[in-house]
Amino acid sequence: MIDLTLPQPYLLFIGDMTIARFAKTAFGLRDWAPERCVGECVVSASAVTTGLPRMTPADARKAGARSMVIGVAPVGGEIAPAWIPTLVQALEAGLDLISGMHTRLASVPELAAAANQTGRRLIDVRTPPPGLSTGTGRKRSGFRLLTVGTDCALGKKYTALSLTREFKKRGVPVDFRATGQTGILIAGGGIPIDAVVADFVAGAAEVLSPAAAAGHWDVVEGQGSVFHPLYSGVSLGLLHGTQPDVIVMCHEVGRDAVLGLPDYPTPNIPEAIELTLRLARRTNPQVRCAGLSLNTSQLDAAGAREVLAEQRRVLGIPVADPLRPGAELNHLVDACLQG
Amino acid sequence: MIDLTLPQPYLLFIGDMTIARFAKTAFGLRDWAPERCVGECVVSASAVTTGLPRMTPADARKAGARSMVIGVAPVGGEIAPAWIPTLVQALEAGLDLISGMHTRLASVPELAAAANQTGRRLIDVRTPPPGLSTGTGRKRSGFRLLTVGTDCALGKKYTALSLTREFKKRGVPVDFRATGQTGILIAGGGIPIDAVVADFVAGAAEVLSPAAAAGHWDVVEGQGSVFHPLYSGVSLGLLHGTQPDVIVMCHEVGRDAVLGLPDYPTPNIPEAIELTLRLARRTNPQVRCAGLSLNTSQLDAAGAREVLAEQRRVLGIPVADPLRPGAELNHLVDACLQG
Repeated sequence: MIDLTLPQPYLLFIGDMTIARFAKTAFGLRDWAPERCVGECVVSASAVTTGLPRMTPADARKAGARSMVIGVAPVGGEIAPAWIPTLVQALEAGLDLISGMHTRLASVPELAAAANQTGRRLIDVRTPPPGLSTGTGRKRSGFRLLTVGTDCALGKKYTALSLTREFKKRGVPVDFRATGQTGILIAGGGIPIDAVVADFVAGAAEVLSPAAAAGHWDVVEGQGSVFHPLYSGVSLGLLHGTQPDVIVMCHEVGRDAVLGLPDYPTPNIPEAIELTLRLARRTNPQVRCAGLSLNTSQLDAAGAREVLAEQRRVLGIPVADPLRPGAELNHLVDACLQG
Repeated sequence: MIDLTLPQPYLLFIGDMTIARFAKTAFGLRDWAPERCVGECVVSASAVTTGLPRMTPADARKAGARSMVIGVAPVGGEIAPAWIPTLVQALEAGLDLISGMHTRLASVPELAAAANQTGRRLIDVRTPPPGLSTGTGRKRSGFRLLTVGTDCALGKKYTALSLTREFKKRGVPVDFRATGQTGILIAGGGIPIDAVVADFVAGAAEVLSPAAAAGHWDVVEGQGSVFHPLYSGVSLGLLHGTQPDVIVMCHEVGRDAVLGLPDYPTPNIPEAIELTLRLARRTNPQVRCAGLSLNTSQLDAAGAREVLAEQRRVLGIPVADPLRPGAELNHLVDACLQG
C-alpha cells in the first residue's frame, strides 16, 4: 500500500514575497483547499497576504498544522537565504516542510541538518513516492473522469478542480486526484506523473485512482496531451492506466500551436476527441466524452459567450469554461454524471 | 553531448553457468556483435562455452578488452558469491564491469570497494545516462526506421538487428540503436528507454538517433506496444521522439492476448498498422509501413511458409520472419529502402 497523503492541515509560507503572482501556490491553496489551511507565515510585514491569519510556526502547530508549505515561487525557483531561519523554526516547532520548487529542500544544508535533528520530513512534491511498479491493467470499481487536452498547460487542472467542486455541490461522492505539483498540494496528496519512471506511468495511474465504492467518482487531473510530441507518452500512459469512464477534452481559444513548438499545430477538436476516445477504449470500451472545457480567459464575457455557443453548435456536445460558472457548466456536469 | 558508448571490446563472463539458455546475453553478443568480443571468462571448467577463447581478465586486457560483461542471468538475477573474486580481478586488471542484471553492481560491497580502489567503472545498462531532458521536437537529417509491435516481447529487437545486418550487406550506412539492455550490449551503447523519467522519453529518443548524414539509416529497437495497457506510454514517446520515416510492424503467430494480460486481445494487424501510422504522422507526416515482421518460431518450416504467404495476401505488403532469411526478407528490406 503506497500512502500518497501529505501531512496536513498546512501553514502557508509567504516569506517576503510582495508580488501576488509569485505566490500562486498560496492563493491556489486558499481558493481550492481552504479546509487544509490554518494560516499564513511571513518573514516580512510587507509581504502579500492570502487573508488567512498570520501565525508563527509554533502557533500554527498549536492550531493543528502538521506541515508548512512553501507557497511562493520566485523567479529561478530558489530558496532565499532570508527564509531559512523561519523554515528551520517550522521544523523545530514540529512541522514537516513541503515544497514544489525546483531546488530540493534537502539540498539546503541548514534544512537537512534541522530535519535530521528534529526527525521532521522534507517533502518535495516533484518527487514520486517510492514503491511504484508496472500495474495490473485490471478493471477497478467506481467511476473515473480524466481531463485531457489538445495541448499542455491550458486548463486540465482547473477543469478537474471545478468539476470536483460541482460534483460535491450535487452531493456526488468524489475525489480530485492530482498528477502535478500544484494539484498535489491542493488535493493533499497525489503523484507527479511526469517524474515517474516511464515503465511505471500506467501503474502509477492505477495507484492514484484505486478501486472505490460503486457510485464514487475520481476526477483525475490530466497531464500533457497525446498530441504534444514531447509529452504524449505521459498522457497515453495516464489515459490507459486511469481507464476513464468519462473524458472531458480541454482546449484554449487561440491556441494554434502546441506549447513551445510553433511548428506543431494543435489538432482540431473533433479529431482530438475521436483519437483520444479510440486510444482510451483500449482499457475501457465504454469510455465517452462528456464535453469540451474551453479556456476563454483571453476573451471578454461577451466574446466568451459567443465562442462557447459556436463550439456547442459545431460539436453538438456541452461546452463550458469552468472559470465562467452558469448554465453551460451545469450542462457539462449533467453530461459527466449521466451514465 | 551525452555519450552513450560502452567501453569495448568486451570479455564475456560466463561464470559457472552450465545451462546455455541462462547465458543468452553471452550467446547474443557472440552472434550479433562478434567484433566487440575478445573472449570469454569462466570460474568453472564445466561452464558452457560460446566458442570464443577462454581468457583471464589480465590476458583479455592485454588483448585489448576494455570491459567485462556479465553474460549470464541465473534465476533471480543475483550476482553469485562464487563470481566475486573474478569480478574483482577484472577491475584490478583494468577492465570496467558491465551488467544488465537486476542487482546493481555497486550494491555488492566487494565490487564497490574494488571499483573505488582501482578507479574502474561499474556500469548497469538498466540505468539511463545522466543529462536527459524533454527534447526539441525538431526534424533531424538522415533516415530512421523503428520496429513497432502488436505487443511486447515478440521480436522487435531481432527484427531491428536483422534489418541492420541486411542493410549493411547492401552497403547502406546504418546504425542499430538500442533501447533495452540486451540491445545496448550488442550495440555497444544505447538508452534503456523504459527506465527513463516519463517526461524525458521523447527527448531520450532524440538523443538516441541524432541528426545524421543524408542517406544514413538509424534502425531503432522498439519497446512495448501502443496497444499494451501497461507500456503504451513508453512506446508512444519513443515513436514520437524517433520521428521514424519507416516502421516495421512486428507480430508473433498465435499471440492472441498481450503479455501478462489475458483479458487484452492483441489488435488485428491492419488496425495496428493504421493506428501506429496515424500516431507517427504527428511528428513525421511522410512515415510509411514497409511491411510485417512475423515471428513464426512456433511453426515448422512448411507451416511458416504458409502463414507468411497468407499474411502477404491479406495485407498486400512484404511479410517476413527475419530468423528465416530468403526472398521474403529481401522483399521486406527492399520495401524499407525504397523511399
